[in-house]
Amino acid sequence: MAQRINTIAIIGLGLIGSSIARAARLADPSLCLKGYDASAEVCDVARRLKLVDEVRQLPEEVVRDADLVILCVPVGIMEEIACSITASVSASAIITDVGSSKTWVGRMLRTSMPGARIVPAHPVAGSEQSGPLAGSPDLFRGRWCILTPETCTEASDTEAVSSFWQALGAKVAIMTAEQHDLVLAGISHVPHLLAFSAVAAVIELENEQGYPIFEFAAGGFRDFTRIAAANPQVWRDIFISNKAAILEVSSRFRTAAERLEGLLLAEDDHAILKELMAAQEARSGMFLGGGSDAQ
Amino acid sequence: MAQRINTIAIIGLGLIGSSIARAARLADPSLCLKGYDASAEVCDVARRLKLVDEVRQLPEEVVRDADLVILCVPVGIMEEIACSITASVSASAIITDVGSSKTWVGRMLRTSMPGARIVPAHPVAGSEQSGPLAGSPDLFRGRWCILTPETCTEASDTEAVSSFWQALGAKVAIMTAEQHDLVLAGISHVPHLLAFSAVAAVIELENEQGYPIFEFAAGGFRDFTRIAAANPQVWRDIFISNKAAILEVSSRFRTAAERLEGLLLAEDDHAILKELMAAQEARSGMFLGGGSDAQ
Repeated sequence: MAQRINTIAIIGLGLIGSSIARAARLADPSLCLKGYDASAEVCDVARRLKLVDEVRQLPEEVVRDADLVILCVPVGIMEEIACSITASVSASAIITDVGSSKTWVGRMLRTSMPGARIVPAHPVAGSEQSGPLAGSPDLFRGRWCILTPETCTEASDTEAVSSFWQALGAKVAIMTAEQHDLVLAGISHVPHLLAFSAVAAVIELENEQGYPIFEFAAGGFRDFTRIAAANPQVWRDIFISNKAAILEVSSRFRTAAERLEGLLLAEDDHAILKELMAAQEARSGMFLGGGSDAQ
Repeated sequence: MAQRINTIAIIGLGLIGSSIARAARLADPSLCLKGYDASAEVCDVARRLKLVDEVRQLPEEVVRDADLVILCVPVGIMEEIACSITASVSASAIITDVGSSKTWVGRMLRTSMPGARIVPAHPVAGSEQSGPLAGSPDLFRGRWCILTPETCTEASDTEAVSSFWQALGAKVAIMTAEQHDLVLAGISHVPHLLAFSAVAAVIELENEQGYPIFEFAAGGFRDFTRIAAANPQVWRDIFISNKAAILEVSSRFRTAAERLEGLLLAEDDHAILKELMAAQEARSGMFLGGGSDAQ
């Protein structure tokens, strides 16, 4: 853990926030951890599990002495939280987050918390489950955490957040917010959009045909649509906050699908095989280990 | 096992054929099983594992005494095999298959094997793995096997094939070939097409942007694209043999995705949430158990 970080405020104790608390506790038992959650039920669970040293239902109460403030709330309510804590954070505190879109979050944080030391971050890990009980100290182990500092960000602040995530077992990458948003649209956001759409399309087909279709689905469809079981509110907000990159990447996915359909229409078996072999080869080389979900 | 079936010819000893051999052996040790495979290597494995009582590299040699002939070769070479065995099958033999598209296969079998007693079938089970070593006697347990007899098919022949699959642990459904092809396009073929396309789109994005993207993929992308690791030849042939239904269903999937993108463009957060909640609810109700892959 970077020397200067003694007290951490974790704003939001769901899957990600509670996993950070567990992993930080393991990494450095001497840390003082303070946690906020809007839900009394989540606060009770956090107290019962002793996830943090102190639990509060008002975010401004946990940020006061913090050296590091981590916003672990869905992107849809992050602005409201940022505005409510900006007057209470210490001038030396570093503000970071775990949001899945970085251009929007970075801009919003700079506007909502003028003068604050902001290092936007995104641990590329998760699960279709949610809530503090689903958290794990190993959620970030071996996973990427992407930092998107501005050119004006102090290098030592970026270094402190980087050290923090490495202490939690993550690998750290640094890129621009725009790069991050395109990467995430490609490997996570557009696949989620397509998985939600695929389920919707099969529901419609089933209703129209009047005979069961879902009933016959096997492991392939189960895995293809697993991410459609993710939290709808969280994903609505991610979609909206990364709209531009998602719409751009989605049109690229569509172009690739239409190209394959065009070859199918023409029954161009050589070209179809070439396309499938390239994809199969690329896919087979990935994920030789396991991995949790990206949001 | 239906009384009349004593000798079974399994044409193709890959994942499905070898799993049928294993499951049939377990269900009724007194059965005489004969197996064909074009590959000398697969034949050697079949002999070594004692998957069947007799292994041959010429399909006409194993069908002669068979009461039931099961075509377990990829749909792309099924016509060639059907033509090569038609003169050798007994007049009382029932011919069935495991192909993933049924309109094309049914028509082809009736043309290639005139006068034969044909009951097209499709066990909705599989794996992205292939070959006789990947087979399992439990592959069909609790999974659907869809039969698509014609109106002129003898009811007793359909009953015999149905009993066979039930003895292997499968649940049997009977529908028209056209219904089957639309169902499979929805739950398997179009998802495969989209998974292959998604990998292709990310490769292109990565090449164009000049920085790593696949590298950051986590569990969501892994599962969404797992079926893109499937055998390219097999899937090229499935795509071509179920072209009409795939192109129709693919355009429905596209319409659903475009609807969601339209709502995103308009930032209509209520309507987006409604769409995601409907899909999430439908998806969460599925697959409470496990399940192997459909082709």
